[in-house]
Amino acid sequence: MTSRISFELNATDGKARTGVINTPRGEIRTPAFMPVGTAATVKAMMPESVRSTGADILLGNTYHLMLRPTAERIDRLGGLHKFMNWERPILTDSGGFQVMSLAGLRKLTEKGVTFKSHIDGSKHELTPERSMEIQKLLGSDIVMCFDECPALPADRDRIAESMRLSMRWAERSKEAFGDRPGHALFGIVQGGLEKDFREESANALREIGFDGYAVGGLAVGEGQEAMFDCLDYAPDMLPVDKPRYLMGVGKPDDIVGAVKRGIDMMDCVLPSRSGRTGQAFTRKGVVNIKNARHADDPRQLDAACTCPACSNYSRAYLHHVFRSNEMISGMLLTWHNLQYFQDIMDGMRNAIAAGTFEAWEKDFHEGRAQGDIEPL
Amino acid sequence: MTSRISFELNATDGKARTGVINTPRGEIRTPAFMPVGTAATVKAMMPESVRSTGADILLGNTYHLMLRPTAERIDRLGGLHKFMNWERPILTDSGGFQVMSLAGLRKLTEKGVTFKSHIDGSKHELTPERSMEIQKLLGSDIVMCFDECPALPADRDRIAESMRLSMRWAERSKEAFGDRPGHALFGIVQGGLEKDFREESANALREIGFDGYAVGGLAVGEGQEAMFDCLDYAPDMLPVDKPRYLMGVGKPDDIVGAVKRGIDMMDCVLPSRSGRTGQAFTRKGVVNIKNARHADDPRQLDAACTCPACSNYSRAYLHHVFRSNEMISGMLLTWHNLQYFQDIMDGMRNAIAAGTFEAWEKDFHEGRAQGDIEPL
Repeated sequence: MTSRISFELNATDGKARTGVINTPRGEIRTPAFMPVGTAATVKAMMPESVRSTGADILLGNTYHLMLRPTAERIDRLGGLHKFMNWERPILTDSGGFQVMSLAGLRKLTEKGVTFKSHIDGSKHELTPERSMEIQKLLGSDIVMCFDECPALPADRDRIAESMRLSMRWAERSKEAFGDRPGHALFGIVQGGLEKDFREESANALREIGFDGYAVGGLAVGEGQEAMFDCLDYAPDMLPVDKPRYLMGVGKPDDIVGAVKRGIDMMDCVLPSRSGRTGQAFTRKGVVNIKNARHADDPRQLDAACTCPACSNYSRAYLHHVFRSNEMISGMLLTWHNLQYFQDIMDGMRNAIAAGTFEAWEKDFHEGRAQGDIEPL
Repeated sequence: MTSRISFELNATDGKARTGVINTPRGEIRTPAFMPVGTAATVKAMMPESVRSTGADILLGNTYHLMLRPTAERIDRLGGLHKFMNWERPILTDSGGFQVMSLAGLRKLTEKGVTFKSHIDGSKHELTPERSMEIQKLLGSDIVMCFDECPALPADRDRIAESMRLSMRWAERSKEAFGDRPGHALFGIVQGGLEKDFREESANALREIGFDGYAVGGLAVGEGQEAMFDCLDYAPDMLPVDKPRYLMGVGKPDDIVGAVKRGIDMMDCVLPSRSGRTGQAFTRKGVVNIKNARHADDPRQLDAACTCPACSNYSRAYLHHVFRSNEMISGMLLTWHNLQYFQDIMDGMRNAIAAGTFEAWEKDFHEGRAQGDIEPL
């Protein structure tokens, strides 16, 4: 335990890195996958179950929490950690991305953005200063700069304009964040798929100086190839001694490809959202448990997995409870998916430390290429 | 562990009894409350969590399981215990009650009942012989006779006719059940609220001879007073050395009143169903967590409860996740309700053993009469 947040890089293998972010609330082993606890809960999971999968840190959403139950209420109740019974580190996003994707009628100015709540239509404002205030009220350990993120594709002018606004907001975020020992502020590189803009954005952020750096504005519809092209250069523009966070990513092979390119942290709703819709990620690819082929199948979902869904139940049971709309379906498949994602992270951390990342990655892709076990 | 099912009565206090039903799958401490695992899951709960509340036995529904995933499929998969990951005892009902309450278009004959599935409209038949077969395929530890249960109020002729049919079916159930060491068959007393019919029914069942006796046909709309009137005499008509099971009961005060009158086992969906709709049972009465008064309340749901909902969360959190339609709402409130019901059973077992049931009952009613803690 430490009173300041620091990052130790323990090993690299190619561009892939492994290390530890030390925080007063515990260690975050990197590369780290952060399950998403949107509205102060990782959907369908008890927090102790999330922890049991190996998660060191959760992500909370500023946009959702500011609308309900509100940041002020969470502050009065002792902060987000206590509220949701998760004592380990929490990273909060800035709200900018959800304003773009969820809110109604928004108005963007130099000052910030006004928008209507998707829950009740009420009017709200987010600015860099207000986002910092909300994330402080929540008690977030890792705070994200408030930024604006255009949907791709967009023309170069729009991307440049948006990126430069985000850089001015990054400066205001840093100013508003102030000096908060034990809490970190991360800047967010923007610039779409334009290398020169990414360079300009990274330089602007390094000039301001942050505890970590996120690559933003990806995984918004550009496809894996375009994302990897960007990740071939974007992490190299960032300081080697600070954590690098790729926001909103992704599928298992996205995650592996990002780590290979020098990313240390990621988050995504995919394992929990897919779990609730009957989709499981396994070492042999994706399994749709609602498929009739599983109805009589006594075998495990993923024979190499240690989660409760794989240890205690057959595919036939998982199929039955999904078809019956039973809550345990979402509970078990979410648990499995989160376990699998954490197992991937654990595998990569060990492989990078051992200098065997390339072999690990080959195994990973070969397993998934096999496809699911044959029907009985 | 034993290879036969036996009942030991350890103490009585007034008419209240405490003891143990020994089965090859473990002890059932009585009085026992059985959570309902309708479709091979206690809704919103992992089975290990159900066990942690103190439940020794679950109830499974023949009607639901025969329709989906079917008894034959569960048998092929190794039985209901393995299928749903619950290694302790399971009692299954006979299907008769749900045919009455859920199925479409049914036709009743001396042989049995044909009906249409509420899931897909497919046609099915249940007879005493088929019900015994299904419960055997499921691997049930305590099997219930197939019976017919008229809705109350009904006229005396209808009640007598139905009861006598159920007694003929009880005989056929016993014959079809055969000799199955390690498995028990319970008869079900019918007769509505008519004491003479209850007597006739109890005598008919004792004549046939069962491992335990249920009081059926109550908690079907007659009200607590009428039910207690019936329970003032019905248990006394049954052998003292066999367990007595009151089917489908009930609210906490129903349960306490039934145990006071000599009942040993009960089951009800109430704790789980209420949990999913935001209703919590506490030592100080019912709490509706969706009520706005809880939005800022940092206090526990029930300060004397050890469940995760009460140990780790505020009322404000429980209110927030209910309002946000988060699955953890149903998960936590169901857990709490099941814990509270099991705590009541534990309290009664200890009080009966100590000869202090009357004092315990007074405390129970006084606590609930206080009503919920004052709003802040």
